[in-house]
Amino acid sequence: MDAEAFKTQGREVLDYIASYLENIKDRPPLHNVTPGYLRKLIPDEAPNTPEAWDKVMKDIERVIMPGVTHWHSPHFHAYFPTANSYPAILADMLSDAIGCIGFTWNSSPACTELEVSMMDWLAQMLQLPKQFLFSEGEGGGVIQCTASDSTVMAILSARTAMSNKLKEENPDITNGEIINKLVAYTSEMSHSSAERAGLIAFTTMRTLPTDENGSLRGSTLEAAIKEDKAKGLRPFFCCATVGSTSSCSFDNLEELGPICTANDMWLHVDAAYAGSACICPEFRYLINGIEHCTTFNFNPHKWMNINFDCSPMWVKKRSLLSEAFVLDPLYLKHQHQDDYMPDYRHWQIPLGRRFRSLKVWFVIRLFGVEGLQANIRKDVQLAKKFESLVRGDSRFEIVGQVVLGLVCFRLKDTDQINEKLHDMINADRRIHLVPAYIKGKYTLRFAICASRTQDSDVDYAWDVIKDLTLKIKSEL
Amino acid sequence: MDAEAFKTQGREVLDYIASYLENIKDRPPLHNVTPGYLRKLIPDEAPNTPEAWDKVMKDIERVIMPGVTHWHSPHFHAYFPTANSYPAILADMLSDAIGCIGFTWNSSPACTELEVSMMDWLAQMLQLPKQFLFSEGEGGGVIQCTASDSTVMAILSARTAMSNKLKEENPDITNGEIINKLVAYTSEMSHSSAERAGLIAFTTMRTLPTDENGSLRGSTLEAAIKEDKAKGLRPFFCCATVGSTSSCSFDNLEELGPICTANDMWLHVDAAYAGSACICPEFRYLINGIEHCTTFNFNPHKWMNINFDCSPMWVKKRSLLSEAFVLDPLYLKHQHQDDYMPDYRHWQIPLGRRFRSLKVWFVIRLFGVEGLQANIRKDVQLAKKFESLVRGDSRFEIVGQVVLGLVCFRLKDTDQINEKLHDMINADRRIHLVPAYIKGKYTLRFAICASRTQDSDVDYAWDVIKDLTLKIKSEL
Repeated sequence: MDAEAFKTQGREVLDYIASYLENIKDRPPLHNVTPGYLRKLIPDEAPNTPEAWDKVMKDIERVIMPGVTHWHSPHFHAYFPTANSYPAILADMLSDAIGCIGFTWNSSPACTELEVSMMDWLAQMLQLPKQFLFSEGEGGGVIQCTASDSTVMAILSARTAMSNKLKEENPDITNGEIINKLVAYTSEMSHSSAERAGLIAFTTMRTLPTDENGSLRGSTLEAAIKEDKAKGLRPFFCCATVGSTSSCSFDNLEELGPICTANDMWLHVDAAYAGSACICPEFRYLINGIEHCTTFNFNPHKWMNINFDCSPMWVKKRSLLSEAFVLDPLYLKHQHQDDYMPDYRHWQIPLGRRFRSLKVWFVIRLFGVEGLQANIRKDVQLAKKFESLVRGDSRFEIVGQVVLGLVCFRLKDTDQINEKLHDMINADRRIHLVPAYIKGKYTLRFAICASRTQDSDVDYAWDVIKDLTLKIKSEL
Repeated sequence: MDAEAFKTQGREVLDYIASYLENIKDRPPLHNVTPGYLRKLIPDEAPNTPEAWDKVMKDIERVIMPGVTHWHSPHFHAYFPTANSYPAILADMLSDAIGCIGFTWNSSPACTELEVSMMDWLAQMLQLPKQFLFSEGEGGGVIQCTASDSTVMAILSARTAMSNKLKEENPDITNGEIINKLVAYTSEMSHSSAERAGLIAFTTMRTLPTDENGSLRGSTLEAAIKEDKAKGLRPFFCCATVGSTSSCSFDNLEELGPICTANDMWLHVDAAYAGSACICPEFRYLINGIEHCTTFNFNPHKWMNINFDCSPMWVKKRSLLSEAFVLDPLYLKHQHQDDYMPDYRHWQIPLGRRFRSLKVWFVIRLFGVEGLQANIRKDVQLAKKFESLVRGDSRFEIVGQVVLGLVCFRLKDTDQINEKLHDMINADRRIHLVPAYIKGKYTLRFAICASRTQDSDVDYAWDVIKDLTLKIKSEL
């Protein structure tokens, strides 16, 4: 493919993308295939000689689209949103073309320096305390791939920090003795990736109960710490959640923070979904207490119009991340590596990294902060609208509180009936949602996901749910 | 930005990309900025209201390009290549537009199933033993972000497997006792990420010496295992390298493999750079012995025309990866999860994942296997040419063997003089390369990186090196 063919075929792809996204409502949000569908549609082996562009491009509709779950359909209400916007797509094209690997400052200074600036922009948009800004002190931030990577990087760095302290206290201590001493905490409402991070770190991870709103409270953490210290253990890490995946509940940072500080523990805050809302002044209270955390993470690739992957993570003291696992071969050294600009390879598990800050820059500038706020407010309004529809129907109940763009609800009936309703909704395929267990009860989750979702789409979804509820009730 | 604006501005971006890549030779490969250059060029805070497209697009030249190290310049000879091709860029555009998150089969079957098929295609292209194919048995593969992620996933999964065995042998054993027992091995020539994986796993990682060709030999590993077993330790993991970063040396898989098998150890093979060459029959011998490995990884995003990130990893037995850290919240369950199609979330550290197999599919089909082989053969030829230029100049010596696209060379002089030459080359900025210590000696690495590099570019680079060598000699 030469430059001229690239331009011609690129235009075809642009047209396809615009047409796909503008007409996405015409496609059912959930696929209708069974495992193994794709293998039957393509050859078993790679072609030896080049195929024609037209044939390849046509296969997007023939092979791919039947098996796509359309996350950007306004009728997709599963999981949490993943962002998608035209400015982000264009920035990613440029990132691919530049195709630099930004592992050190020297390997492409623009890649590192724009990321540094974007981390400061985002920190200001979230009104993070100044100590998290590069421009202000010892703190700073980095774009990780996902919230799971951030949690893993946080717990591993916390393990290193505490391990260094234990070795100072007792130079003869073995790594095994350290592992047996360390204990980490998270809440029963936190994402499965927090518990998985404990398995990866090979340290004990205790899952603590939450209050009636699904919030981990200070007294619960404090009691657990006391208990573990009495056993001779060393609490070192707490992962708190702001906007849990199951129910969008919020741990109490203002209570947890001082307890972590008093006990010399690393507090990591996972605000993967809800963090984006904090750019709106009316939702900023959700991260009150954030000044106590050691690391903070959220996903603009969920709810801030930036395509996956983009998971910024801040740390109060840069060296806590950057010195956790330093290895320094000559082929990665450069003359400026002791300057204040980071070598991001030390801040993450992978070595290589894409030029992801470019899409952050494009999206913030082309939407403006007000444009990004408007999108969040629209989605919260739509969730409130759905909540009032549910509340207006006595067969249903709301589970938990509707604070942002997620509504948890269920039929006032058994788990079995609710599961049946869930299965019918997804078999029907007009809308798509997923369930969660909340406080042990089978619950349906209705998330506002696509940036194209409007008022009428909420009515549509509610009509589908009522329609199927009638069916389920008549079948009983 | 509406659909019309996206199409118009997208065309502008396509034109910019084609012009950038076709004329990249006109830009010095190495940037000319100092740390902090970018912050002075952009505002300290995010804009509240949207900015005009033209202003944003113009900033690519004003703000970004001065700080770019141009990895796709034919005069870039540093590190190893990172791939970049028009077909991959177009596929990534479509991947961004679809914007699905493929953590489970159900969250977008096409994303998982095309990956399954592409892993089988690639395995066949590399002539991997059939046991690594999904279509053949218990094996299969997954696209990780980077080789570092693969090594980390391998050692962590190996730790789980061995930990389960030790717990079977002794149900009372603690995690700490396990940590103190486990020992892993890699070679002095392996990438820094192997040693770093040991720090992440919190297990002992021994760095073993290599023979005169930089190859880890069976006898060395065997002696180390014997020594450690005599101490009561439990060897569990070996990371072997096919094409090391420093010097493109090759560990001896045919010797290491049976020793790992005999000692119940997990053998991970990191062929990040050299793996791509194995699609050419004449280089396939480089992974002879691969049937002994537990996991195998290479980076088509280095040398197979697929943009970063794309780091396929195969495992002989799927459950070794997929059951290493299983957590199964309801919101991620689906009715087909026990079928033979994988839920890739279990195969990796992150939860979310992009639709990366799309660019694999486009690149293989639009180049054909023969096109991909031709690119590798061209680069090896150019390296051979550079080697003969160096050998024809009695002031220089070749270090190690030139097998693929990397030439390691040095002045027959002190480390200090060689370091001086390196610094002068990069200060000159007509070409860019990086050094490495090989067997304790400061050595220059000349890698053929860009797909656009031609015969005349090798002559150009050699002229630059000779020119600066004259200067350095006259200054003495």
